[in-house]
Amino acid sequence: MHRYALKIEYNGAPFVGWQRQNDHASVQGVIEAALSKLQKGDHTITAAGRTDKGVHAMGQVAHCDLEQEWEPFRLWEALNYHCKPHPVAIVDCVPVTEAFHARFSALERRYHFRILSRRPPATLQAGLVWQVKGPLNLEAMQDAAAVLVGQHDFTTFRSTICQAKTPVKTLDRLDISRIETEWGTEYHFDVRARSFLHNQVRSFVGSLERVGAGTWTPQDMKNALDARDRAACGPVSPPHGLYLAHVTYDADPFARIPT
Amino acid sequence: MHRYALKIEYNGAPFVGWQRQNDHASVQGVIEAALSKLQKGDHTITAAGRTDKGVHAMGQVAHCDLEQEWEPFRLWEALNYHCKPHPVAIVDCVPVTEAFHARFSALERRYHFRILSRRPPATLQAGLVWQVKGPLNLEAMQDAAAVLVGQHDFTTFRSTICQAKTPVKTLDRLDISRIETEWGTEYHFDVRARSFLHNQVRSFVGSLERVGAGTWTPQDMKNALDARDRAACGPVSPPHGLYLAHVTYDADPFARIPT
Repeated sequence: MHRYALKIEYNGAPFVGWQRQNDHASVQGVIEAALSKLQKGDHTITAAGRTDKGVHAMGQVAHCDLEQEWEPFRLWEALNYHCKPHPVAIVDCVPVTEAFHARFSALERRYHFRILSRRPPATLQAGLVWQVKGPLNLEAMQDAAAVLVGQHDFTTFRSTICQAKTPVKTLDRLDISRIETEWGTEYHFDVRARSFLHNQVRSFVGSLERVGAGTWTPQDMKNALDARDRAACGPVSPPHGLYLAHVTYDADPFARIPT
Repeated sequence: MHRYALKIEYNGAPFVGWQRQNDHASVQGVIEAALSKLQKGDHTITAAGRTDKGVHAMGQVAHCDLEQEWEPFRLWEALNYHCKPHPVAIVDCVPVTEAFHARFSALERRYHFRILSRRPPATLQAGLVWQVKGPLNLEAMQDAAAVLVGQHDFTTFRSTICQAKTPVKTLDRLDISRIETEWGTEYHFDVRARSFLHNQVRSFVGSLERVGAGTWTPQDMKNALDARDRAACGPVSPPHGLYLAHVTYDADPFARIPT
């Protein structure tokens, strides 16, 4: 058996999410179908993060096992050929040992969220950002984000269907920056943790947007966290501003010796 | 009669171009239809640049004439409401005098072109860039671009259906830069002139890409220009990497007093 690590980019719009489902297009399904063109039979690939319906990725990582040894560049090209015309791209492909597991070896997941603040509807950025009409108070959002960093019981920010054994997680970072672009003001959220609860990032961003808009104070965020009650969460943000940006491993499988 | 200047952003993908055509969706048609919701009857608006099928804009400028005086913010909001669901957004709307003419008052048009260089197919950037597979030689493209700047007979870089009276134009700038992004290497072209011939920017970029790829030398670009022959042009680039970025007027109608 030969194992390969894949770094994957996708536009989540047409998919029910990462996870394979009968009768619905999924990212996992697209890549597994591509693998079955290369090696007959069923394939099951494992990803670092099972992104939800509509969520994008720039740096999803998965591993696959193949009977035949492949020259990585040929495998990479063949997979991209067979993923067409779906908006799924294998952006890197490297051989790894069986000690590497895309999900269990991951030390940190990094999510990126884009809010575009402007009144006219987004055209070129449509589907790539969550658009809000009014300006947001960056400093207030940063103060509220600071409340969330560290180890907490995140029951408030967890979907009721979340299957994690415990709601206690450690949030490593939640950095927010304002970027002035040609098409308006964007707020970028950089969210990092070893692992996340279901809907955790979108629950954070939806609540932080309330703080930015002035409806909530940073103290309201503290109260929501302390409540340990899903009903205390702000609105969950839409998925199309969210990107799985990066997965960190002890040894980066995609690192190359500089040439 | 009350005249308003509109700054317009659009995704060119679903349109036959700026110009109104029977039975085909156009940007002009979308905005004129929105105007007819506000004032019964036919409307004809005039734009600074009539972009081709598939070409985008971040800073197209047009003017419209209305019988009734509108509070600019209300007009702006009403137009955006009626442009939905098309990917056309009025990003600014200001009253101007009848001395202002979006086309004839324009002093300079600025186009922006994005090439994405990477092997895996674009997913999140699909439709927003021209993707090429190999790396491009930036310095060679810059040398070749320098040949084009200034006043020349641009017959080589002009569509055979171009209706301009003369092929002699003055190219103010053609700056090329390389941008490393999370999704690959992009080459950005910033092209400025008082006015352009039909297909001129796409003819430039298609020929410059040949230089970047090593198929042409900068001297080949000089020979192509000197040939004054459409047959000497390189391939015309696809439209979806091209953006009408900005139109300059003697007095910027959209300038606001800083608050």
